[in-house]
Amino acid sequence: MHPLDEAIDLRASERQELPHEFTGSTHPAYANMVGPFGGTTAAQLLQAALLHPERLGEPVALTVNFAAPVADGDIRFLVRPVRTNRSTQHWIIEAHQMEGVVATATAVFAVRRETWSDVEAVMPANMPAPDTLARMPVKGMPAWPKRYDMRFVEGAFPAAFDEQEQAHSRSNLWVRDEPERPMDFASLAAMSDSFFPRIYIRRRRRALIGTVSLTTYFHADSTLLAQVGARHVLGVAKALNYRHGYFDQTGELWSPEGQLLASTHQLVYFKD
Amino acid sequence: MHPLDEAIDLRASERQELPHEFTGSTHPAYANMVGPFGGTTAAQLLQAALLHPERLGEPVALTVNFAAPVADGDIRFLVRPVRTNRSTQHWIIEAHQMEGVVATATAVFAVRRETWSDVEAVMPANMPAPDTLARMPVKGMPAWPKRYDMRFVEGAFPAAFDEQEQAHSRSNLWVRDEPERPMDFASLAAMSDSFFPRIYIRRRRRALIGTVSLTTYFHADSTLLAQVGARHVLGVAKALNYRHGYFDQTGELWSPEGQLLASTHQLVYFKD
Repeated sequence: MHPLDEAIDLRASERQELPHEFTGSTHPAYANMVGPFGGTTAAQLLQAALLHPERLGEPVALTVNFAAPVADGDIRFLVRPVRTNRSTQHWIIEAHQMEGVVATATAVFAVRRETWSDVEAVMPANMPAPDTLARMPVKGMPAWPKRYDMRFVEGAFPAAFDEQEQAHSRSNLWVRDEPERPMDFASLAAMSDSFFPRIYIRRRRRALIGTVSLTTYFHADSTLLAQVGARHVLGVAKALNYRHGYFDQTGELWSPEGQLLASTHQLVYFKD
Repeated sequence: MHPLDEAIDLRASERQELPHEFTGSTHPAYANMVGPFGGTTAAQLLQAALLHPERLGEPVALTVNFAAPVADGDIRFLVRPVRTNRSTQHWIIEAHQMEGVVATATAVFAVRRETWSDVEAVMPANMPAPDTLARMPVKGMPAWPKRYDMRFVEGAFPAAFDEQEQAHSRSNLWVRDEPERPMDFASLAAMSDSFFPRIYIRRRRRALIGTVSLTTYFHADSTLLAQVGARHVLGVAKALNYRHGYFDQTGELWSPEGQLLASTHQLVYFKD
């Protein structure tokens, strides 16, 4: 069983009334410096809605707010479809531990149908193929980056915090789960949080950071994700603004064929 | 009293227990084709947290999910601080009408402190001053665009739906409340939803649309907003991807001095 599948293996509680309750746990394979990788928590929150018996369609939008440090151990997920329409469904999901709420999420699910479609964002051109690039070294890193095969074209995680400030924080990289795993909504949600905090790329110095809010729009449906399979996808990330303790960064995940699978945005706390 | 202040004038209910309840109403000055302008609903949801007696600091992130059409009339806002930390606070807010939940929001508030700050996004250069540009004609439009003074440099709302597809949907414009109103978090939240749906700019044809999720990151604090005052701010918007009934668009609001006040992202349902 893939470690991500173990991490999102939630157990339904006895509780039958609203909201439904699931229980999961942090997974050591996705540990961060302290507590779990936020992307795995995001995947668990989404999975609670995906597993719900009244679920309609597939996710199109997910926002996760990280309210407090998640302790290693069990997490209770309270999941409630607050509104179900003909082709859309709205969710509120809460993650609880002993001392209270540690994360909240809202999600929009939808039954899609074919329409005129087009991409306006620009996929970086002339990217070298993943197999021509070296994998990012993960020695000395926390567990979670070891669960991704990242091959940077530009904007790699700094090999040393030499405090040489860069002109920008843009990254281009190929990324896939490690070990390989066919992509689904849970892994796409987690991967949307796999872009390193831009302040490290930009300033090349240590900083205490923590994502406070993460939003992902899923442009891919399950048919498109099945076409992507377990291959690398192209990730693009950049920061917009750093001010008074918070910065935001935006990312895109592209299929090798040039389809935008997801766009993702997050606001990050930092202390310099 | 400014119509926006009337629109966000919520009344606390008798209800003392958690969650707190406020009551507001849709405002005819911000009517859309059907129901209210979503930006006003977003401002009301944020205002419910701003008015809460346990509020800590100022908003840094807001996500609003539009769950169902809002009917003209009263709206009940249920607002709950789900987690209060030393310098951050997390909120869940629900908007209810007779037939159930019509919108949900999550918000992050924070007490900020000064840090290294910088902007990486690029403000469009050489924009003509607002007083050298004509205001967008609002005749024949719903009420809400009449509550904004918009002066387009590029990517105006099409004068006619001539079905001449454009290469992109980018807009640059100066925008302020009409009548003038000193900017605050409520007006910034509302203005973040004032960018017209990109599909109209791109395709110049009619489409049924509806925002399903709107996220705004507030880079400005109240001190910076006070410096902006009632002047025009520069808005920039573009689409990323249109696929199978949903597209996303991203926007920025800049002070005349080149500070990024807010970045905003939304996912929009469309039917062509």
